[in-house]
Amino acid sequence: MKYPNNIIKSNQKNINYSNRGMSLEFDLNITNDYYRDKNIAVIYKKPTPIRVVNVDFTNIKKPIINKAFFEKASTTDYNGIYKGKYVDFEAKEVKSKKSFCLSNIHKHQLEHLFKVKEHKGISFIIVRFIKFNKTFLLDSEILLKFINKGNKSISIDLFNEYGYQVNEGYRPRVDYIKVIDHIYFGG
Amino acid sequence: MKYPNNIIKSNQKNINYSNRGMSLEFDLNITNDYYRDKNIAVIYKKPTPIRVVNVDFTNIKKPIINKAFFEKASTTDYNGIYKGKYVDFEAKEVKSKKSFCLSNIHKHQLEHLFKVKEHKGISFIIVRFIKFNKTFLLDSEILLKFINKGNKSISIDLFNEYGYQVNEGYRPRVDYIKVIDHIYFGG
Repeated sequence: MKYPNNIIKSNQKNINYSNRGMSLEFDLNITNDYYRDKNIAVIYKKPTPIRVVNVDFTNIKKPIINKAFFEKASTTDYNGIYKGKYVDFEAKEVKSKKSFCLSNIHKHQLEHLFKVKEHKGISFIIVRFIKFNKTFLLDSEILLKFINKGNKSISIDLFNEYGYQVNEGYRPRVDYIKVIDHIYFGG
Repeated sequence: MKYPNNIIKSNQKNINYSNRGMSLEFDLNITNDYYRDKNIAVIYKKPTPIRVVNVDFTNIKKPIINKAFFEKASTTDYNGIYKGKYVDFEAKEVKSKKSFCLSNIHKHQLEHLFKVKEHKGISFIIVRFIKFNKTFLLDSEILLKFINKGNKSISIDLFNEYGYQVNEGYRPRVDYIKVIDHIYFGG
């Protein structure tokens, strides 16, 4: 398993915060808050795309949307800036103990990740296997290679071999910037 | 007035497409579509943030949101990547013939633009004076200087002097990348 320096010092010390009923999305949001507070990076989760059909303007200061539908996201959930570079990623939790099924990410989201890479940005997926409480970062170039090989899913063993485990702690909760530093900035 | 080379060749040739009942948001969306189609840049408008209160799951495949509220955006409306750099901006239309009132941009949106600059990204505002059908790009560093001087608004004359007019045409509709090239890449 490839670990960036000090990302995980000891498995025993790796306290399981994400088992406290917290989701990966929640963990990433407070991690991003932390990065912004400390002025490390400016990365946000995008709002969920919603198609508004009807709005009640009776209270003009606080209109109520009373008919709307969820829409498919055309891009990934997270993007922002780190050390001047554009950063873009999608994050997913997996219940399976064995593998991450690629159908969990829409085709246009995958294309978006590869497009970002083409434009010299940093793009990857973050996948958490909740049964093992292990969170991995996998670069989108490696992801593309698996897809081109015909893979329909990526096993936890492949994440172990080709991805990077992301340290989980108190602050920051999921320190993926440490992995970015290691992979893309030689840190 | 500072024009990047060829941005506006002739005022007479500058056909007024935005008067065809099209908004700046619409124009920017199709401009961004064009940039993506031509693989020039990957820039999207973020979805409007909406707080969902109640959802009817009777049709599990197409749940209906029947109570929700609009939320204030914590960041700007547009971001993405161009030539490897992170790009971030807010766009506004102005009805006034004289000036753009800074209260049109929320404080946290301004702070976000300055933060992006601090992290070595490209950030600016795009303002269209609809009465004159003129659209300007103003770098956020210059914007910050005006704010620090105590300006509550920015006159069209200041936009003329310190900003860059964005060419409007058929394809792309509002070619702000040309201005970006000129300002940030010396193009």
